[in-house]
Amino acid sequence: MGQWAKRDDTIVHQEDPYNAEPTPAALNHRPVTPLDTFYSRNHGPIQQLDPHTWRLDVDGLVDRPLTLSLADLRQRFAQHSVVATLQCAGNRRAELSTVRPIPGQTLWGPAAISTAEWTGAALADVLGAAGLHQRGRHVAFVEADATARPDGVALFGGSIPMAKATAGEVLLAWQMNGVPLPVVHGAPVRVVVPGYIGARSVKWLRRITVQEHCSDNYFQAGDYRLLPADADPAEAAAGHGLPLGVAALNAAILTPDQGQSLPAGPVRVSGYACAGEDREVARVDVSVDGGQRWRQADLGTAPGPWAWRLWQLVVDLAPGPVKITARAWDSSATCQPERPEHLWNPLGYMNTAWSRVNVTCTAR
Amino acid sequence: MGQWAKRDDTIVHQEDPYNAEPTPAALNHRPVTPLDTFYSRNHGPIQQLDPHTWRLDVDGLVDRPLTLSLADLRQRFAQHSVVATLQCAGNRRAELSTVRPIPGQTLWGPAAISTAEWTGAALADVLGAAGLHQRGRHVAFVEADATARPDGVALFGGSIPMAKATAGEVLLAWQMNGVPLPVVHGAPVRVVVPGYIGARSVKWLRRITVQEHCSDNYFQAGDYRLLPADADPAEAAAGHGLPLGVAALNAAILTPDQGQSLPAGPVRVSGYACAGEDREVARVDVSVDGGQRWRQADLGTAPGPWAWRLWQLVVDLAPGPVKITARAWDSSATCQPERPEHLWNPLGYMNTAWSRVNVTCTAR
Repeated sequence: MGQWAKRDDTIVHQEDPYNAEPTPAALNHRPVTPLDTFYSRNHGPIQQLDPHTWRLDVDGLVDRPLTLSLADLRQRFAQHSVVATLQCAGNRRAELSTVRPIPGQTLWGPAAISTAEWTGAALADVLGAAGLHQRGRHVAFVEADATARPDGVALFGGSIPMAKATAGEVLLAWQMNGVPLPVVHGAPVRVVVPGYIGARSVKWLRRITVQEHCSDNYFQAGDYRLLPADADPAEAAAGHGLPLGVAALNAAILTPDQGQSLPAGPVRVSGYACAGEDREVARVDVSVDGGQRWRQADLGTAPGPWAWRLWQLVVDLAPGPVKITARAWDSSATCQPERPEHLWNPLGYMNTAWSRVNVTCTAR
Repeated sequence: MGQWAKRDDTIVHQEDPYNAEPTPAALNHRPVTPLDTFYSRNHGPIQQLDPHTWRLDVDGLVDRPLTLSLADLRQRFAQHSVVATLQCAGNRRAELSTVRPIPGQTLWGPAAISTAEWTGAALADVLGAAGLHQRGRHVAFVEADATARPDGVALFGGSIPMAKATAGEVLLAWQMNGVPLPVVHGAPVRVVVPGYIGARSVKWLRRITVQEHCSDNYFQAGDYRLLPADADPAEAAAGHGLPLGVAALNAAILTPDQGQSLPAGPVRVSGYACAGEDREVARVDVSVDGGQRWRQADLGTAPGPWAWRLWQLVVDLAPGPVKITARAWDSSATCQPERPEHLWNPLGYMNTAWSRVNVTCTAR
């Protein structure tokens, strides 16, 4: 068992803060990702909070500010479970960095994405108990203070629009896959915002603030922004660029492996596809001739309306080098963009280009 | 004045059924499209209904089936106005047909899209008055019987999911840009479904049915479906392919004209961008070197949350042939797909590729 109870074959990009993703093979084929496999994305230290003394403040534009213990949350509010996929906005950044370097950013492969069954209270219910003022437009989250937080590292936070916050699927979760939320994933309670970039699902939740404006936390106001390709990365810190939030359609091939040698003949190609907010995965196409002809993959069944689809297709590969390409379409008939060259941006976010794996097939 | 009170320069693709779009120049620069300019998309005859004898039935999974006159609609329900863009799912099909022919379909240019201020009753209020059964999942619309309908032409209809039908922005509209709805646009009352393909905004509305399943009307069950590129178009009629519904991100250059000759130097490039359901236009990029470098266009102001953005940018063009390209990004950081070659489908729907206009610049 590796660090933070992750699999030994976990790909650790950084020890502190802890940033790690599973191997594509480990992620594949399991509609709900096991705890030892779920990716970890952090900007600061993993926080060790005492669940008995932990408190959640709900304040801002509310009639009745609340301070809730974990027992309060569990006893006062109905328990809900949602199977939801979370994906880092930097997922698949490594591929973007082959277009042009992206210094100072974690070079995620295709596995900064995972799916869990989350259980907790509906944020909508907690906000209802606090009583929302009409002026409230955004709901902001901030993590707890870390005792060992290094100087200069901002507390992590972010906000979501009120319509999303009250929609029912956003949870204050204390369970993951039926067991208490692990420390590395935000114990005792984290936010889970299905359909949004992972950065909005704030871990080690300490405070919920109802406010007129979206979060001015550094990780929303000055990071997680899509800059034009020719911008200086420092412009993000000044609030330039497109603020990320709602997730976008994405897909990746998980098997075969990039660069694998395998016998020619029938080969099973498989991976995931994940639609953005308010959309569904409608079709996944696979090509073995560089995008000239496509066949539709089997989408399997969705583990839930907020979860990915694990698709697969058996293709017949001839001997020699083969380019395998996959692309997803969503329920608005939107197709992923083709080339990472056109999606490159200085912070390397939102690589949603068609997924490509090159293999070499040997004659049987 | 042309047919159906449209501008003389209207591009009429077909007289009967009447299918016509404005010139790009006529569409451009006006956030709300004048009535004489708004595009017309029809599958059957324009219906001449008597507003005094017209009745709307609301039936299916409701507690109190309703039969409403126009006076009932106006008196019993609050009046709402929504500025909404409607776009045909076949908009920009002409460009797709240059990739491979699309026989039997109207070859729309980039102007099968328009924006109006619609006024009427909220569908949500009318459904509320009828009383929704819990089993109702879809709300279906059917147009009135045409007296002169040719044999074999199906009545037009379609449905939207209950969540959309009750969301408030869907109108039963009797006014367009402040005047009574013109006959050619569905008088006395049409549905307006912002954020969906134009085909769901059923004209000459006769019946609203609350039901468990989506519409089995030919124009939803057997048409307006995105087939894979290698499918026989007849497969759509059998219900294959991806059913269209929610609109997708799209954009087009309206000026300069395709193939225009113009003096080198500063040139204003302008057009529209329209986000899909639950998204906003976040950025529009313009390139004059085939997509190597991009500059951001001025998005202007949105005429409303359900409307397009009319963007513009002054670029400096060198003498010789110039390829002007424009692409839009939405609030999920999704970019339009690059090439129509990869979007081609047998019925020619949903051409959302980057917009391209080729011009020749002469030395000043």
